Amino acid sequence: MAHAHLYGVILAGGSGTRFWPLSRERFPKQLLRIIGEETLIQQTVRRLLRSMSADRIMVVTNQGQADSITLQLMNWKDDLSGNIIFEPEGRNTAPAIGLAALQLLRRDPDAVMVVLPADHVIAQPGKFQQAVSLGVQLATEGNLVTFGIQPSRPETGYGYIQPNRRSRLGHRGKMTGYRVARFVEKPDISTAKRYVQSGNFFWNSGIFMWKADVVLRELERQKPKLVKGLKRVDAMLHDGAAKADIAKQYHRLESVSIDHGVMEHASGAAVIPVDFGWSDVGSWSSLEEVAPQDRGGNVLSGNIMDIGSTNSVLFADRRMVATIGLSDMVVVDTPDATLICPKSKAQDVKQVVQELKKRNAPEHLEHVTVMRPWGAYTVLEEAPGYKVKRITVMPGRRLSLQMHHKRTEHWVVINGRARVTCGDDVYDLHAGQSTGIPIETPHRLENPGSDVLEIIEVQNGPYLGEDDIVRFQDDFGRGETT
Amino acid sequence: MAHAHLYGVILAGGSGTRFWPLSRERFPKQLLRIIGEETLIQQTVRRLLRSMSADRIMVVTNQGQADSITLQLMNWKDDLSGNIIFEPEGRNTAPAIGLAALQLLRRDPDAVMVVLPADHVIAQPGKFQQAVSLGVQLATEGNLVTFGIQPSRPETGYGYIQPNRRSRLGHRGKMTGYRVARFVEKPDISTAKRYVQSGNFFWNSGIFMWKADVVLRELERQKPKLVKGLKRVDAMLHDGAAKADIAKQYHRLESVSIDHGVMEHASGAAVIPVDFGWSDVGSWSSLEEVAPQDRGGNVLSGNIMDIGSTNSVLFADRRMVATIGLSDMVVVDTPDATLICPKSKAQDVKQVVQELKKRNAPEHLEHVTVMRPWGAYTVLEEAPGYKVKRITVMPGRRLSLQMHHKRTEHWVVINGRARVTCGDDVYDLHAGQSTGIPIETPHRLENPGSDVLEIIEVQNGPYLGEDDIVRFQDDFGRGETT
Repeated sequence: MAHAHLYGVILAGGSGTRFWPLSRERFPKQLLRIIGEETLIQQTVRRLLRSMSADRIMVVTNQGQADSITLQLMNWKDDLSGNIIFEPEGRNTAPAIGLAALQLLRRDPDAVMVVLPADHVIAQPGKFQQAVSLGVQLATEGNLVTFGIQPSRPETGYGYIQPNRRSRLGHRGKMTGYRVARFVEKPDISTAKRYVQSGNFFWNSGIFMWKADVVLRELERQKPKLVKGLKRVDAMLHDGAAKADIAKQYHRLESVSIDHGVMEHASGAAVIPVDFGWSDVGSWSSLEEVAPQDRGGNVLSGNIMDIGSTNSVLFADRRMVATIGLSDMVVVDTPDATLICPKSKAQDVKQVVQELKKRNAPEHLEHVTVMRPWGAYTVLEEAPGYKVKRITVMPGRRLSLQMHHKRTEHWVVINGRARVTCGDDVYDLHAGQSTGIPIETPHRLENPGSDVLEIIEVQNGPYLGEDDIVRFQDDFGRGETT
Repeated sequence: MAHAHLYGVILAGGSGTRFWPLSRERFPKQLLRIIGEETLIQQTVRRLLRSMSADRIMVVTNQGQADSITLQLMNWKDDLSGNIIFEPEGRNTAPAIGLAALQLLRRDPDAVMVVLPADHVIAQPGKFQQAVSLGVQLATEGNLVTFGIQPSRPETGYGYIQPNRRSRLGHRGKMTGYRVARFVEKPDISTAKRYVQSGNFFWNSGIFMWKADVVLRELERQKPKLVKGLKRVDAMLHDGAAKADIAKQYHRLESVSIDHGVMEHASGAAVIPVDFGWSDVGSWSSLEEVAPQDRGGNVLSGNIMDIGSTNSVLFADRRMVATIGLSDMVVVDTPDATLICPKSKAQDVKQVVQELKKRNAPEHLEHVTVMRPWGAYTVLEEAPGYKVKRITVMPGRRLSLQMHHKRTEHWVVINGRARVTCGDDVYDLHAGQSTGIPIETPHRLENPGSDVLEIIEVQNGPYLGEDDIVRFQDDFGRGETT
């Protein structure tokens, strides 16, 4: 039932603080496997694949997440390769959506977009697919379509949408679309309570459908300068302008959400009340809305040994976590940082992240495992004078040809086959073989095989920063950092 | 003010479950740095040094802790070298004390012993020293001296001592010794409450003083078979009998505490009520009795970032632990295991340890850092096919000359100088140099320098157990395991 002009636009630019320490600034929520076997962005792609083919899916993200997103979407890499828009920086949702609309119009003047965040959970993707079908119909008729969620609590952090029940725009099965009576951003608690009781207000899910030309026209009407700037960026991308010039232009765009920039003052806004198991999983405590629970009401993941806890969210990675008699607690354990708090304080994790940022602590920025376009590395131990990493190189990939001024490196192959360039020599190493790279010697690590290559790297020297690197050649066009 | 015949006997055989995950079966409480700069056993040695020289201190421990104890007592190694009794297995306190008494009598027929556990905290060592002075006097007069602690709560886990206030045996300053009226082992809660209110019952601190010949005579009167067996073990040790034969003999000894075996039915029992800041730190929650607290009443140690917790015990090792708004909680983070529970459940950590034991999980037995007579090693990562260790070798020490059937080893020196034996070759490596040890090649790692040697070892092979080791020569008389 794919619609001839339907495209998906996944907004994957979010930075993550509320799921710290599992999320990091460079590893936000959409990259996490917090429920189910796949990460949230992978689940979002699967959700869209019920309504369209993979080559119809666009992803808008930022440079900082480029490597991680590319790796996670590896399954669909051929279809998606030209469809990923890397924003030089996040400027909120209106510029991201506007740019995606401009790019889509180059491809299909009749394009209809379903726009959705990469980091939401939708428990019933079949119902979502039905909602999209109705959405296509309403969007094609020129409406700006939102999806409204029946509120389960007087949440003050969401926007609310009131439908005009007398203005029905269409229906499919039990699902009906209405003209929007009004939008209300983050009401106070007493207003929120009234809305929930009334039964006629819905949460704004942040998922939208519209024709690309319609949303651009509406954005142009309300924010003409923004659209002018976006058209310039679109042209620069099309003409292959220098990254730095595009970044400068992008930085000038007004940072505004699509809600403020378009929806709240749009004449053609529509809402389809839906019931597809939506959650924006906004904090650790919200996991219980969507994740399976044990008898004690706990959400458990990983190597947890629990004795008698109740209603708690307990996440462990590799290390063993023993919990005894906790109630309504959140415990999240990662290789370099652990969080423990009552569920009622889960929102305060932002304060921890802010404090870490102030202290310039690495724990807010990234994990000990860092994704790279050629694979990933994990820091096993770091202390003055040395650093030990496990490095994983995907089949056929290779790191840049590089050199360090201040450190020697020692590589021990533990899995797969390594092709090593060291000075003028090129040789292969198998598991159980090792080599040393002297200071100031050009070198390269490559995986020529079809299995994953894993090595242990021991760095030794007075300075071990990632910026002591001189690149001679790189498959991924990188100038600096590994 | 050293007394001519005074000796210290430190009982360091305890196995640790109540301080898991900081303590392990092979790394019990006395080896922990849970309060102050030194470990509990080091603090216990310091406490005795106020009353005697180091060569007067004996330590009774078991083979499983030999390496750790030796390393921790390195400061006094020359004085202590002949004074450590390694029990083949723990048989409770009566055999350990009896054996120490026999050994002391060989050295000094008038020996007076102060016997104390290695894992207690005494906040005021000056007062302890005064108590020992009075104890020497009473012990020399033939009494079996206990130290009684004013109870602060109706604890049902301790023994209680009632002094006979009309029978004063001596005094020093405000400190007075009395004949014991009676011992009561672990009373029920209502009895304990009555005792605390009465003001005339004291906790049995587990610290004793007596003449070696007096305690042996009393033990012989009550447990003649035990003393007969102990004399045989003492003779075997003196004659340099085979370890296995001594172990067999020791295994036959009755396992009984000194309280049951001697004190409860002794005629010459005395008690000195004391007030030297004693705690047996029996659980994580008991730490608040002895450790300094922050404004919120928290006991904090290590890399903790706390926002607003109260009355909690928060211990971190290297990794960052963020806590928000906890109250009356215990959090203990170690490299391979983390514990989180309310203080009221701190005793239940035993259940966790039992469960780990049942599952044969390594986390109950030892830490990722394991002490050896030549230094220590830390497992940085372990997975099928490889293991990465950081190995520390003390100056002048060396590992055994050994060989493995199933693994290659790769050594990268990160600090100090290594002398490597590999087959017929012997060569030195400095920081930044590396070498590989092929399968089935005799090899040895030695630290010939005066600095600590540190290397990263990467093991590679289908089987990496510590038992794949063939030893050709060992400085520490070991036949098996590294």
